Amino acid sequence: MNYYPKTLGELTAALSLFPGIGKKSAQRLAFYLLNCPKGDVARLLTAIQEARSKIVNCQTCFGMSETPECPICRDQSRDKSIICVLANPNNLFVLESAGVYKGLYHVLGGLLSPLDGIGPEHLRIRELLNRVKQGGVREVILALSSNVEGESTAAYLKRLLDPVRVRISRIASGIPVGGELEYADEITLARSLEGRLKY
Amino acid sequence: MNYYPKTLGELTAALSLFPGIGKKSAQRLAFYLLNCPKGDVARLLTAIQEARSKIVNCQTCFGMSETPECPICRDQSRDKSIICVLANPNNLFVLESAGVYKGLYHVLGGLLSPLDGIGPEHLRIRELLNRVKQGGVREVILALSSNVEGESTAAYLKRLLDPVRVRISRIASGIPVGGELEYADEITLARSLEGRLKY
Repeated sequence: MNYYPKTLGELTAALSLFPGIGKKSAQRLAFYLLNCPKGDVARLLTAIQEARSKIVNCQTCFGMSETPECPICRDQSRDKSIICVLANPNNLFVLESAGVYKGLYHVLGGLLSPLDGIGPEHLRIRELLNRVKQGGVREVILALSSNVEGESTAAYLKRLLDPVRVRISRIASGIPVGGELEYADEITLARSLEGRLKY
Repeated sequence: MNYYPKTLGELTAALSLFPGIGKKSAQRLAFYLLNCPKGDVARLLTAIQEARSKIVNCQTCFGMSETPECPICRDQSRDKSIICVLANPNNLFVLESAGVYKGLYHVLGGLLSPLDGIGPEHLRIRELLNRVKQGGVREVILALSSNVEGESTAAYLKRLLDPVRVRISRIASGIPVGGELEYADEITLARSLEGRLKY
């Protein structure tokens, strides 16, 4: 016989849809949601609804924004001649928190993945090409993941952008800062050798 | 300059209140909630509200229930002469999933913790005593965590229950099944020696 309350089961199931949350974690979150102060639940529900209703894609870079054009695209102090291409809007905040990049961004909205049925028409590739062709852009930095999808998307973009007079670069692959050489895999080591810099 | 949308920041903050969810995980959950299908969000919001409004404490054992008395307390096939004492209602489902216990439960709603200001009056200890004194109970099993709070709560309950004619037992401490002897700490090993069983 199953004694688990039905509504609790449904809450656990809904929380299991979260990325990286398995059944045990979902149960823990469900118990928390059941027993936490009423104010905390109200705050969460409001935050979800507010965020869903207010956050839109920036019309220029397709990053997340509460205004039609995001604060980065509107910021006159940023270098408009460099565009950093990202797969997802969350990548943008990771790069921003590094605090070294002062150019603009372009969010593709994913990576090419024929197996999942994601072709160039599903990504904002045409929009990127238009931005570059409008002129004033001297460099496009491809900051995509170093996996099969990232590599093939980078190769596709390079082929498209090559006819346009623009410098195309990629973020470096190599051992992470603070990482031990003996724990790096062979492909990463080969990449970090290929990409070696003058010291 | 901070480019993180305010509503997204608030959503991340609300999600950080979840147990075991740090800032990075909260961000991941927030991005999921922003980008997942509308139906999934609606399902989650409904599940939270339904569970909060329908689940109450069972009036007998104080476990979670959708009815005034929970299905376990109402189940005529369960052994009403044994009561297993637990700290929290989630412990109940863990024990139930083990599938070996056929008695009833009593959920204290926490453990004694003077430093956090939790005394006997904050737990359902009086209610436990009343159940045992009503008669028909031959054994009380204390299934509490094996930490300071669990030990002191167990000691307190033993002192209270000793005058009542009832057998008091505790779940065994020892090395986990499948666990390696060399990784067990000294106190656990000492406990598992003390609690050795005839083979």
